Amino acid sequence: MNRSIDLNCDLGESFGAYTIGSDDQVIKLITSANIACGFHASDPLIMDKTVRMASQAQIQIGAHPGFPDLLGFGRRNLNASAAEVRAYIQYQIGALSAFAAAHGMKLQHVKPHGAMYNMAGKDPVLARAVCEAVALTDENLILLGLAGSQMEAEAAKAGLRFAREVFADRAYEADGSLVARSKPGAMITDEDEAIARVLRMVKEGTVTAINGEDIAVQADSICVHGDGPKALAFTQKIHDALTREGISLAPMSTAV
Amino acid sequence: MNRSIDLNCDLGESFGAYTIGSDDQVIKLITSANIACGFHASDPLIMDKTVRMASQAQIQIGAHPGFPDLLGFGRRNLNASAAEVRAYIQYQIGALSAFAAAHGMKLQHVKPHGAMYNMAGKDPVLARAVCEAVALTDENLILLGLAGSQMEAEAAKAGLRFAREVFADRAYEADGSLVARSKPGAMITDEDEAIARVLRMVKEGTVTAINGEDIAVQADSICVHGDGPKALAFTQKIHDALTREGISLAPMSTAV
Amino acid sequence: MNRSIDLNCDLGESFGAYTIGSDDQVIKLITSANIACGFHASDPLIMDKTVRMASQAQIQIGAHPGFPDLLGFGRRNLNASAAEVRAYIQYQIGALSAFAAAHGMKLQHVKPHGAMYNMAGKDPVLARAVCEAVALTDENLILLGLAGSQMEAEAAKAGLRFAREVFADRAYEADGSLVARSKPGAMITDEDEAIARVLRMVKEGTVTAINGEDIAVQADSICVHGDGPKALAFTQKIHDALTREGISLAPMSTAV
Amino acid sequence: MNRSIDLNCDLGESFGAYTIGSDDQVIKLITSANIACGFHASDPLIMDKTVRMASQAQIQIGAHPGFPDLLGFGRRNLNASAAEVRAYIQYQIGALSAFAAAHGMKLQHVKPHGAMYNMAGKDPVLARAVCEAVALTDENLILLGLAGSQMEAEAAKAGLRFAREVFADRAYEADGSLVARSKPGAMITDEDEAIARVLRMVKEGTVTAINGEDIAVQADSICVHGDGPKALAFTQKIHDALTREGISLAPMSTAV
Repeated sequence: MNRSIDLNCDLGESFGAYTIGSDDQVIKLITSANIACGFHASDPLIMDKTVRMASQAQIQIGAHPGFPDLLGFGRRNLNASAAEVRAYIQYQIGALSAFAAAHGMKLQHVKPHGAMYNMAGKDPVLARAVCEAVALTDENLILLGLAGSQMEAEAAKAGLRFAREVFADRAYEADGSLVARSKPGAMITDEDEAIARVLRMVKEGTVTAINGEDIAVQADSICVHGDGPKALAFTQKIHDALTREGISLAPMSTAV
Repeated sequence: MNRSIDLNCDLGESFGAYTIGSDDQVIKLITSANIACGFHASDPLIMDKTVRMASQAQIQIGAHPGFPDLLGFGRRNLNASAAEVRAYIQYQIGALSAFAAAHGMKLQHVKPHGAMYNMAGKDPVLARAVCEAVALTDENLILLGLAGSQMEAEAAKAGLRFAREVFADRAYEADGSLVARSKPGAMITDEDEAIARVLRMVKEGTVTAINGEDIAVQADSICVHGDGPKALAFTQKIHDALTREGISLAPMSTAV
Repeated sequence: MNRSIDLNCDLGESFGAYTIGSDDQVIKLITSANIACGFHASDPLIMDKTVRMASQAQIQIGAHPGFPDLLGFGRRNLNASAAEVRAYIQYQIGALSAFAAAHGMKLQHVKPHGAMYNMAGKDPVLARAVCEAVALTDENLILLGLAGSQMEAEAAKAGLRFAREVFADRAYEADGSLVARSKPGAMITDEDEAIARVLRMVKEGTVTAINGEDIAVQADSICVHGDGPKALAFTQKIHDALTREGISLAPMSTAV
Repeated sequence: MNRSIDLNCDLGESFGAYTIGSDDQVIKLITSANIACGFHASDPLIMDKTVRMASQAQIQIGAHPGFPDLLGFGRRNLNASAAEVRAYIQYQIGALSAFAAAHGMKLQHVKPHGAMYNMAGKDPVLARAVCEAVALTDENLILLGLAGSQMEAEAAKAGLRFAREVFADRAYEADGSLVARSKPGAMITDEDEAIARVLRMVKEGTVTAINGEDIAVQADSICVHGDGPKALAFTQKIHDALTREGISLAPMSTAV
């Protein structure tokens, strides 16, 4: 069983005059922040502000690169080539690194966003492009991705550190992949059930798949959300349940 | 007199399906490349390709950050705040640094582009923002800007290395500033006269201002162009004239 | 004295996943909506939705074109040429017109946004470009701009219908221009005073300038806001005060 | 057999400082121009200039809407919803219409660009979205799309005028669809063979599919290109061959 676990959350997804998220609230509950880098969300001023907040909160930071699709918030599949995806990620890691340097920080990890996360989770060619981008920029960076995904497989091949991410509010297929949102039962809507599942994933490395079967799942980090009072309250619940069970919260870099 | 001089040129200003410049030609003639960073021009794939070309040509590279105005190619004054300008430059230096790292290179310098260059050359508040951006990202970077401009003054205050840039094809006011393009006589259209002026600036540190007066001008780098056959031929002429006079061409980092 | 007055408000300034404003609330209080057109804010889906809302609320709509500066929300001066400004406005009027047609509506007016509004209010060359854009697209459109501005002067020369806009919460210079926001006293922060000023502008055509002098000001439309509970409450107050005074609320097209 | 045929070409695909195509050359050879609308290419100034050129050349114009992907020139599949695609097209038709109005012209047709063309050609849901966008904006507009595609089928259901487009340089599958570019034999590289195929499609309504079978294909318009000397020369060849055969060139609106 895990003695410690990382809580990661997307941060810094505002843009210009537009605000999204309750970064100042959720930042108190997490150990790693995935910071948007200006493609699917954010802008240079917000990146600077978000890195400063993370520095003050003494949490770890990572780049959260996405597709160049601000209009779709990076959530729409885009048929970009592997070379394009690789270059998009290099660019965004580099951009965030400049703000990290300005605040005396170093990036801990990289987590692709939205459609890029989903596509690279399934397509080994894109997964390899993601790994190459990380390794070319800084080979000490951890790649954060879905446990059991193609990103995990390619990171292993590339000799890259990989942190396995699990979701409290998502159902799993028997093969360890997430149930597509379009399918019934994809979301775990009962909060107590979701908490119980998280605790079991962390403590036992097991989760019940949608077909009723128990499957193995390795958890280095739990993805939480801070956009809206309900998400925030649920993140607080996960945070408290883990603490109550004696599981310490620590950034993924302490484990992988 | 200078024994050596740098020739700098803007490179990598294509975008997606759009091509600008004859990078593969001009790169053979210069010692430092100012590489566009995706705001006024360029994109991640082109940045990667341009850094690779510079690496193969064994020339030095610098970031060429501009305003977020692809539509205006960064040439239109934008009333951005000092904090915005600073963050825009940090972001773009960081983004280019990732590609430099991938090709085993380090950035030598930073040269603001277009309207940002002009505005920061005259406004000490923006000039300070430029210097802060450079220092916050990497204090060893050289700032490349107009000789005698506010950028030179602020770089001196900030303890930043500064390379003084001169122009072969532009007339100077008696105070050392460039004659505005809108004024008659702003451009030196006679190529032989332009070459003679460049040689005198480099060898004697003197240039004849538009009012006929001889003024002092310090040259660490000459700005040349490679967009179009005419610009390319003129750059070749400058290159050859300097070589003929026994002035060696060397990146600005050897001098400042 | 005016028997009726128009209340105009900016609407549809959300973008993709980002929400700004309380459009569904303020729409009940106004008679004309200025609808963002995708340059400084908004996107095609939001434009469609906003026009539908206006159609259902049975209010008039106009285009609210801005600079191509989503990052700055169109609030930053941009040194665009007159030809560029003209084309930007034509483009945005056309784009909104397509959604108007789809909902069986016609545009009533055009009101430039933010920095474009301010710059064209002072610069006759830009003001003329604005008027040309309107006239070239549909000569029956009303231009909505600051009372007494260069836009009013140029609209008169061009034979264009013009609606004079006044502000409840802004102080006026003795020449009828708005006191710059950077100056002390620029904003009328006392709500009762603001309401009294509005009533006097509408009923008497007079306002007390910042130097204490009473000046003439013609009001065809009052600019109100709906972003945030406070702005909304104040708009409700203006709406109620006008109604109480027997001044009917009617779109600007009934007056000009 | 057809007595006349339309030649259509994409025009106005430059952007800001970036130039693509030889619009001034190819415009003399064609009868209908598909004008980019600022999403995958073009900007307001270029749209104005391109419509003026078409007006002077006395050819017909249509909107050429694409995905909001300037970086990918609209050539990359984007998983946009039907509602998004519909709104994108409405927006772009409207924007171009404003410039048409300014030059005393009316749009003749709409032809989706690149990935949007391909996706809507195969997916009836997207094809319906395209048809709705056209019908909602102006029900007299002709939709120009691949002969035999889902767009043709949906246009028929919607009662929309449809012009069937054929390609000189592309091979056809036995079902009338284009052979994917990734497959061998997809492009007809022999110019004489391509010309012969075009003539047969126009005169006989028949083409030999890649499996050797003769299939029926209806041609209202031939897609030609003007980017580069080779494309231009080939377009000239097609133009001359048709003329020589006594087939007159006339805009699609004369036929459908």
